[in-house]
Amino acid sequence: MELINDLNWRYAVKQYSDELVSEDKIDEIVAAINLSASSCGIQPYRLFVITNRELRQKLGEGSFNAQIHASSHLLVFAALNEVTSEYITDYVAMMEQKRNLESGSLGGLKDMIISHFSAQTPEQHALWSDKQAYIGLGTALIAAAAVKVDSTPMEGFDAKRFNEMLGLSEKGLHASVILSLGYRDAANDYLASMPKVRLSIDEFSTKIG
Amino acid sequence: MELINDLNWRYAVKQYSDELVSEDKIDEIVAAINLSASSCGIQPYRLFVITNRELRQKLGEGSFNAQIHASSHLLVFAALNEVTSEYITDYVAMMEQKRNLESGSLGGLKDMIISHFSAQTPEQHALWSDKQAYIGLGTALIAAAAVKVDSTPMEGFDAKRFNEMLGLSEKGLHASVILSLGYRDAANDYLASMPKVRLSIDEFSTKIG
Repeated sequence: MELINDLNWRYAVKQYSDELVSEDKIDEIVAAINLSASSCGIQPYRLFVITNRELRQKLGEGSFNAQIHASSHLLVFAALNEVTSEYITDYVAMMEQKRNLESGSLGGLKDMIISHFSAQTPEQHALWSDKQAYIGLGTALIAAAAVKVDSTPMEGFDAKRFNEMLGLSEKGLHASVILSLGYRDAANDYLASMPKVRLSIDEFSTKIG
Repeated sequence: MELINDLNWRYAVKQYSDELVSEDKIDEIVAAINLSASSCGIQPYRLFVITNRELRQKLGEGSFNAQIHASSHLLVFAALNEVTSEYITDYVAMMEQKRNLESGSLGGLKDMIISHFSAQTPEQHALWSDKQAYIGLGTALIAAAAVKVDSTPMEGFDAKRFNEMLGLSEKGLHASVILSLGYRDAANDYLASMPKVRLSIDEFSTKIG
């Protein structure tokens, strides 16, 4: 399937060319991420799409990942610090509206989700939200490859710096993982021509019949 | 792009038909997951593909997710409990081999990764490995949809039970997240005909130019 080709085509770009990704392609990638699954279906993260290079230079200060600024776009996956009852209530109300259901008809679902998260600490909420963002990252990597846009997923960044400079903390969010987008400079990227390394299928997976 | 159609087509199936997924399709899905990106590229999780329905019935005991057994296949994403120096050393040796590099030529990379993880607790390793597994889950959801196989991602399962019954603990692994595969029984699944609910693009994402 095409997906296998796309996954083989992509790699974590180290060196980008100056070519910019069109906004049409960015919008397609963002739309795909927004369609990703999340546990309980409540999308506990938001996406910031940054083009401003000066801002990205400041965000990346001290990071070994030059791709934070030396790329076309930067996506910041920002997860919820806390899954509050208010957030769940609002989200479920939106579900009812979009499904043309009477207000309150998903009350059972709402109560179940609220009771689930009430038993957890904010730290657990944040970790859970991070994991959902990583499903979105999985989608983003594939969506980018599908429109032949290169990318680099990165954890090596100063999250505190991102949270402050992007005003994430005051929105109840924190930077979870980031992804640069652009076009590979194959001639100057040592990794561009390297074979992809993966475990053999037998090492990676086990069938239990 | 086709991906958007696939993402719109999929939903978290509640009720599966009895139809089984062919092993060819399962193999394609597993191959796609194995091609997923992971931080440092070291694939800190393994995949278990379970067809045995009796075993799945036992694994699912006490869970509200009947899809654990009432589906065609069950994928268990099992993440590393600890990212040991030995694991990193072996993985980097494999990288050298697959890239036809001299043994030891990726020593710098190896030392960097080892030093990174040495500064962390096993609990942090496990959480980090979980997050990488969720990138793989993102791939799995898309790969299944690409071959028109339905799926249900699930966190509501007894991880301790999985770790014991599948012998994960003794392999230094733990069940991170699971995914059932099969074919929707649309006539008997209330969710099959429901419109997908997502935030509007403006609520989900913010562009910073």
